[in-house]
Amino acid sequence: MNILAVGAHPDDLEILCGGTLALYAGQGHKVTMAVLTNGNVGHPDIEPDEMAKIRKGEFEAAAAIIGAETIWMNVDDELSVVDLDARLHMVDVLRLANPDIILTHSPDDYHVDHCNTSQLVFEAAPLACVYRLKRELPSTPKQALIYYFDTLGAVNFLPTEYVDISNVIDTKKKMIYCHKSQVEYMKTATGFGMDDVVENVARVRGFAAGVPYAEGFRRLEAWYRGTAKRVLP
Amino acid sequence: MNILAVGAHPDDLEILCGGTLALYAGQGHKVTMAVLTNGNVGHPDIEPDEMAKIRKGEFEAAAAIIGAETIWMNVDDELSVVDLDARLHMVDVLRLANPDIILTHSPDDYHVDHCNTSQLVFEAAPLACVYRLKRELPSTPKQALIYYFDTLGAVNFLPTEYVDISNVIDTKKKMIYCHKSQVEYMKTATGFGMDDVVENVARVRGFAAGVPYAEGFRRLEAWYRGTAKRVLP
Amino acid sequence: MNILAVGAHPDDLEILCGGTLALYAGQGHKVTMAVLTNGNVGHPDIEPDEMAKIRKGEFEAAAAIIGAETIWMNVDDELSVVDLDARLHMVDVLRLANPDIILTHSPDDYHVDHCNTSQLVFEAAPLACVYRLKRELPSTPKQALIYYFDTLGAVNFLPTEYVDISNVIDTKKKMIYCHKSQVEYMKTATGFGMDDVVENVARVRGFAAGVPYAEGFRRLEAWYRGTAKRVLP
Amino acid sequence: MNILAVGAHPDDLEILCGGTLALYAGQGHKVTMAVLTNGNVGHPDIEPDEMAKIRKGEFEAAAAIIGAETIWMNVDDELSVVDLDARLHMVDVLRLANPDIILTHSPDDYHVDHCNTSQLVFEAAPLACVYRLKRELPSTPKQALIYYFDTLGAVNFLPTEYVDISNVIDTKKKMIYCHKSQVEYMKTATGFGMDDVVENVARVRGFAAGVPYAEGFRRLEAWYRGTAKRVLP
Amino acid sequence: MNILAVGAHPDDLEILCGGTLALYAGQGHKVTMAVLTNGNVGHPDIEPDEMAKIRKGEFEAAAAIIGAETIWMNVDDELSVVDLDARLHMVDVLRLANPDIILTHSPDDYHVDHCNTSQLVFEAAPLACVYRLKRELPSTPKQALIYYFDTLGAVNFLPTEYVDISNVIDTKKKMIYCHKSQVEYMKTATGFGMDDVVENVARVRGFAAGVPYAEGFRRLEAWYRGTAKRVLP
Amino acid sequence: MNILAVGAHPDDLEILCGGTLALYAGQGHKVTMAVLTNGNVGHPDIEPDEMAKIRKGEFEAAAAIIGAETIWMNVDDELSVVDLDARLHMVDVLRLANPDIILTHSPDDYHVDHCNTSQLVFEAAPLACVYRLKRELPSTPKQALIYYFDTLGAVNFLPTEYVDISNVIDTKKKMIYCHKSQVEYMKTATGFGMDDVVENVARVRGFAAGVPYAEGFRRLEAWYRGTAKRVLP
Repeated sequence: MNILAVGAHPDDLEILCGGTLALYAGQGHKVTMAVLTNGNVGHPDIEPDEMAKIRKGEFEAAAAIIGAETIWMNVDDELSVVDLDARLHMVDVLRLANPDIILTHSPDDYHVDHCNTSQLVFEAAPLACVYRLKRELPSTPKQALIYYFDTLGAVNFLPTEYVDISNVIDTKKKMIYCHKSQVEYMKTATGFGMDDVVENVARVRGFAAGVPYAEGFRRLEAWYRGTAKRVLP
Repeated sequence: MNILAVGAHPDDLEILCGGTLALYAGQGHKVTMAVLTNGNVGHPDIEPDEMAKIRKGEFEAAAAIIGAETIWMNVDDELSVVDLDARLHMVDVLRLANPDIILTHSPDDYHVDHCNTSQLVFEAAPLACVYRLKRELPSTPKQALIYYFDTLGAVNFLPTEYVDISNVIDTKKKMIYCHKSQVEYMKTATGFGMDDVVENVARVRGFAAGVPYAEGFRRLEAWYRGTAKRVLP
Repeated sequence: MNILAVGAHPDDLEILCGGTLALYAGQGHKVTMAVLTNGNVGHPDIEPDEMAKIRKGEFEAAAAIIGAETIWMNVDDELSVVDLDARLHMVDVLRLANPDIILTHSPDDYHVDHCNTSQLVFEAAPLACVYRLKRELPSTPKQALIYYFDTLGAVNFLPTEYVDISNVIDTKKKMIYCHKSQVEYMKTATGFGMDDVVENVARVRGFAAGVPYAEGFRRLEAWYRGTAKRVLP
Repeated sequence: MNILAVGAHPDDLEILCGGTLALYAGQGHKVTMAVLTNGNVGHPDIEPDEMAKIRKGEFEAAAAIIGAETIWMNVDDELSVVDLDARLHMVDVLRLANPDIILTHSPDDYHVDHCNTSQLVFEAAPLACVYRLKRELPSTPKQALIYYFDTLGAVNFLPTEYVDISNVIDTKKKMIYCHKSQVEYMKTATGFGMDDVVENVARVRGFAAGVPYAEGFRRLEAWYRGTAKRVLP
Repeated sequence: MNILAVGAHPDDLEILCGGTLALYAGQGHKVTMAVLTNGNVGHPDIEPDEMAKIRKGEFEAAAAIIGAETIWMNVDDELSVVDLDARLHMVDVLRLANPDIILTHSPDDYHVDHCNTSQLVFEAAPLACVYRLKRELPSTPKQALIYYFDTLGAVNFLPTEYVDISNVIDTKKKMIYCHKSQVEYMKTATGFGMDDVVENVARVRGFAAGVPYAEGFRRLEAWYRGTAKRVLP
Repeated sequence: MNILAVGAHPDDLEILCGGTLALYAGQGHKVTMAVLTNGNVGHPDIEPDEMAKIRKGEFEAAAAIIGAETIWMNVDDELSVVDLDARLHMVDVLRLANPDIILTHSPDDYHVDHCNTSQLVFEAAPLACVYRLKRELPSTPKQALIYYFDTLGAVNFLPTEYVDISNVIDTKKKMIYCHKSQVEYMKTATGFGMDDVVENVARVRGFAAGVPYAEGFRRLEAWYRGTAKRVLP
């Protein structure tokens, strides 16, 4: 299968579904990681242009660990919008990745860039496969299923499906450590790092799933877009 | 009463509330059917401009069966947006139809054009009757009640009110068959037609309502916009 | 139609659906008011046996105002249970009243007697019409629809249907004043009376319904027990 | 795996999860069908004792079609209760079937016997594997996962998982036709049969799942009782 | 603390959280009242420009009663939008007020201006404290907590926290009476005034909170933006 | 204030609200810990009678750490029921502890003993203060507020209020270690201990609350039983 994960900021996918992506990749599926914004305001001491370059590098390094393709959508951090251009931009991303499955943010997450990413994926999914909607790339053969991954810190999210990431928890953390600019800054700012968040949330989702470490998901229920199979790894 | 139904694509109203509209019309109410998009990408083998013309004709033919007025909003298919122009366009539609009751898509439906239609109706309803909001047409005398009709395939929707469409199920299907370009293409693409969807969903909603065939609805609960009467047929 | 209202304590029906019952009665429907408990611990200064007698009288006086039949189930106050005997007792009540419509407490109300009343009605409704379930009275010809009325103080309840009680608000209050033992004691204990509660809640439900005074309801959604008609007054 | 399905009445399992059971059986899993009540009031013209015998035979015939084991719990129809004896009776059933997966009614279904079945399964599941809870049969080695199947007529139920039963829809209907006493009586009473209900609901759930015929489920989310695998067929 | 309340129209804050603001102010906190639109279509007989001036005056008079600062965002009434400019405008408002706590509309309210206000506050709250997001004013030191106040008429809103406004109910009403242009017009149009709405809703919320008059709230649950303290007065 | 915590099994309170109890005790409030069942089937190698004795000792040792009173309700483990005797037993517990605040299990927890504890507390709370409901102990002067604590493993629970337990996390763990029979057995059975669960869940709830370690709660919303104050520590 082709798997497309779409995150809002350059480190979101690693934090929220990195284990699942590692498993997909390990099973031989083609994994594409797309990120909507360039994260250019992600550090007080670094100029935005410089920051965007650093974060792109960190993102690509993390993707390389599992051999994933990357798509850098390059919207300025905190400034994502939901309009027609953004919708068509996301259609282009879907046509490029041609996914069977899309993993993205929950519509109820805490940050506008997360919510907009989720909304744009929701909007683009049926459009990507409309033949007469002409873009540079041709339409995809079928609609992808959408799975919403957990929110940051497991706030306000009740999963209905789980992926056992116990065997890839170290890979997931390695992917997170690639985002050095963020991990270090966050430790300074809050006293804990994203690795702590990931460790604790994955354990708690594991308590629900009956495994040591898990990631939690909900599937978008929509006309003819359900599935009667396990498509998560 | 004046009844306004607003659908996203030229065949949505027939599928989702066609029976209810037939009943309203049969009771002598004035029924107006508005459609936001022109459905111009609705067939892989037909050019958009040509397709839009065909679908306008199909839509008008379906409306003619029950003697409904039509409003063709002519937004390009898949490309609807929620912005100020779109809101005011919908205000104009409401002022033209001057409805007591509006039937439209649920905000939780599966397609961006459905969701946007629902949102624009929600936004426009209080504005249509604001005297000082100057448009070509004068403000309406009062706010319309909004009823959300079922989703396509009854996915993710729990009705709280039902309309018994047993006596008009054939009319409803006739309205759907007017959308020849869609019915035929869908059968090819999926192996079943919209008449099958309508038949099965209406039976299932009927099981809940205790009648052979039903359509399901929820009313928008909002300040001073409820009702203590049955206004559905 | 035959209307059956089932309350937990002798004054609950008046407070929570008295206006609707007055309207039903005024329209010529047969209204039966049943009360599960005898309210015998309803006053600190009055012995339970004496209290039960007083409350039965108050209840019958209130019912008499609208010409309703009464059923006194005589379970001790605060001591209702959900077991097989209680279920069959409620079946007997339903067979006696033979209702088309039942009004009762929401399953999410605040007091165990309210919740148990609601649960017993839910349990008994399908059983009342089972021919082979032999009781003293024969089975009823069909299942009644169940409407849940508002909770005390409108806490934790979102109505989906409203009844305009503006014309009978005084009748409703008169019914409440029949429960003299409660109205007076409550004013002493809390500084306000049930008439205040009723006044404020009916106004607030009226804001939602677009009328001066309203009572709010939700219908139990259940297999073949919905309706495609307005059955509330 | 060992699969245990627990229904309230002798035909509930066939109607609500018969296709899934057929698939499990076809895949070589051991399927046990348990039924809480004996359905003895299921026909106006047949004496309860006689009826119970007939329904046991119908139930066993249906189970035989897919080679399922049966457990007849023999509680009188409409008279199920939730108490300690009933809980321990269900523990015994679970210890006998030793299930990996349990399919049962949703807690929000429409009939007290359905709700009680669901509640008793919920209560018994953790207890079945408690070593020190001494019953005739020894404790099971581990807790079973609980899946709630659809409600009758798909009322008030939003599935999160689907099973594609397109290949076994005929088997499912054959199982239902075994319940001759019910199928015929229902047609007389309502004008339609359980085969119609099954046909329409399975199509509608199929629209959500993207397959011709489907059954819908929700999994109980509970401490250490989730799963990170597909366990439905 | 610094408290920022953001309303859609010039009288919304007084109606929906005026008591709470009065208490905050009385406790010595710095209260800022911001209003998104200028309310310029608020009266059929008054020209928009004139109306906007009047309403600004009324708003400032109401704020003056409790000594609150004001921010007049001056978007035309009924015409608010959610786009990037609007988001950054709200960021500027947050940087100006530098709030610890923000009170604003529920995302599920009835009017597009209410919903947009809520959405813009949600979007702006994390951005206000991003150092590298350069605006005229510097970033704030920390994220504010967001509390959603009740909806108009308490429709569709279930509070989880309450503020006892019994001691300031008169102040709240005085603030509302400052909006003379609205209070009078509403009485003419509907037969009741905002003071009636406030009286009845505050009593009903008081029934839930166990006090004479209350205002109800829900807190936005979001990553690291909860609190383990009482921050409402 | 008087604080009453009611758990289902002898170690539940420590796991689910031990930090909050420690804080209450540290602030000088009177804390009573009640436990419904005796936990007598809590170990495969220990006879029930012996086990109950051991667990009572462990429970008392844990309570002693924070100086809490204890109430041992001594229902056999896994065999709790909701009936009239159980309700009155709980009324007696409430009259003994005379609480301002009750902390207990969520009604949606995973184990029948947890759910029954929650239900019995819900039922008993209004009854405890009914003067005419005669028991050995006199009625309490007022209804207690009910707070539901988190579920085991944070499954299926969305808190609305948090308590910062960072300063007492070690005390909480010490209380848990008192339950030696359980901690050791669980590590053998599952590979992790309750201290791990507590650590991870408290961190995750802390992410939502913006503190290092937190416990999460929801308050029962019910007639006149809300509060407009912070009553959690």
